Amino acid sequence: MPLFERMLVAGVGLIGASLGLAARRAGLVGEIVGFGRSEENLRIALRRGAVDRYSSSAAEAAAAADLVVLAVPVRATRGVAEAVLPHARPDAVVVDAGSVKVEVVDQMRSVVRPPARFVGCHPIAGTEHSGAAHAFAELFEHRLCVVTPVADTDADGLRRVRAFWEGVGMRVEEMSPDAHDRLFALVSHLPHVVAYALVDAVESERVAGRDPLAYSGGGFRDTTRIASSHADMWRDVCLANRGELLRAIDGFAEALARLRALVEASDGEGLRRELERIRAARARLADR
Amino acid sequence: MPLFERMLVAGVGLIGASLGLAARRAGLVGEIVGFGRSEENLRIALRRGAVDRYSSSAAEAAAAADLVVLAVPVRATRGVAEAVLPHARPDAVVVDAGSVKVEVVDQMRSVVRPPARFVGCHPIAGTEHSGAAHAFAELFEHRLCVVTPVADTDADGLRRVRAFWEGVGMRVEEMSPDAHDRLFALVSHLPHVVAYALVDAVESERVAGRDPLAYSGGGFRDTTRIASSHADMWRDVCLANRGELLRAIDGFAEALARLRALVEASDGEGLRRELERIRAARARLADR
Repeated sequence: MPLFERMLVAGVGLIGASLGLAARRAGLVGEIVGFGRSEENLRIALRRGAVDRYSSSAAEAAAAADLVVLAVPVRATRGVAEAVLPHARPDAVVVDAGSVKVEVVDQMRSVVRPPARFVGCHPIAGTEHSGAAHAFAELFEHRLCVVTPVADTDADGLRRVRAFWEGVGMRVEEMSPDAHDRLFALVSHLPHVVAYALVDAVESERVAGRDPLAYSGGGFRDTTRIASSHADMWRDVCLANRGELLRAIDGFAEALARLRALVEASDGEGLRRELERIRAARARLADR
Repeated sequence: MPLFERMLVAGVGLIGASLGLAARRAGLVGEIVGFGRSEENLRIALRRGAVDRYSSSAAEAAAAADLVVLAVPVRATRGVAEAVLPHARPDAVVVDAGSVKVEVVDQMRSVVRPPARFVGCHPIAGTEHSGAAHAFAELFEHRLCVVTPVADTDADGLRRVRAFWEGVGMRVEEMSPDAHDRLFALVSHLPHVVAYALVDAVESERVAGRDPLAYSGGGFRDTTRIASSHADMWRDVCLANRGELLRAIDGFAEALARLRALVEASDGEGLRRELERIRAARARLADR
């Protein structure tokens, strides 16, 4: 028997549509219904088998859903929840999939009534592409899903949410919304802003009439790949996690200033020591 | 008939050893001799077929060489040239493969006597790995090699150097040492410093006892890949191109500060517009 009878995927972008494909493959849900703004994207999701049907009517799409997945840009979460939840089953379990948790968890308190069957979720999966056209069922396999239950989160809802993410192949870790937002400001939101700033600084220059981008190699390409990410989504993330992101940017700017000072002072030994220390620290990552 | 009878590869790291493999495969050289400090690395190069023989004696290694490749960290170039060139053929063509050109081209004026058969070269190829163990013949294929001849560069030497790089599969473009150093400060040296600073800013934090690096995904991994690069090599690059690098860092810091200001002001529309503009600019790169 599937975990849920009817899953509503509100927002069939890369994450929502991939989740449809993965949940179907794993037999976690009976029926999958899509809801979204873009008729074209909904059609792609249907054609690719990510949803069984779709509707642009919230009432029609949400009817009898016992799992509601809010897979929309962070700051659209509350509005979409308000539109669809009145039509879902009153005991429906509700999750989001956004990159920021404090703001969303807080907002959802007023939308999902106790017993609070909303569980803040952040499946750490994605590519720089967006839309149902890029969805694939394996997106979540062996990746981490952070869930951020709070004091009044319904225990049974949490249990079923964990089983759902594990069912699509993820490791699940619980932490507080605060800890989540600090961690992901550092390892995700900051790198995005840095990558955008790097592209900006380089693409605007001309050297003896030459476009620097024409001379970039694999290093620049890798370093700036995430600057291809969706602007609406990242605008939302940056603003919804504004405090932690500003703190992370300032910490980064200090680290950059320290390296700059060593270069300016032509301190070869100091610079080599710092680069070697940082290289070794990053090796903690490569070993995983 | 090969382009050169005997190629001396001084420094059989990733670039030097890959060049040995590529030149042999293309039949560009008769014999390949390795010279370097690390006996272990020279043995690996020999075993992998990157050199036919090696010596840690400059006189022995360089004897009768008509092509000398200086594939060592930028600031070791002059010293190695001074050690090996007196033993090479007087008419030997000399190239380097470093990421900085103004300083090296300038230094080599006093080492290679006119007619100046030294040609500054920068094959834009490499990985975050180093050493002969990671060498492969295909490293240069379809990549760009920038060559930086100056007024007194010997025309015949330049012609043969171009043929050599083209022979290992590269496109060759000539530009001034100045233009090279400004361009690569932007698209290569700056991204390295940024990646190192990003790792530094993140790895030093702890969030409720957690190591942020344990939560990083593909985005952080890509963005910081080049922070695994060799510390000695990048210390040299940063200092040898100090002026242009400082200028590039400052331009980047301004771009970062502009994005930070939009976040701080919670200017959603301004931020979305900037991210979208930058995303579109980067697409110039993805299309290549």
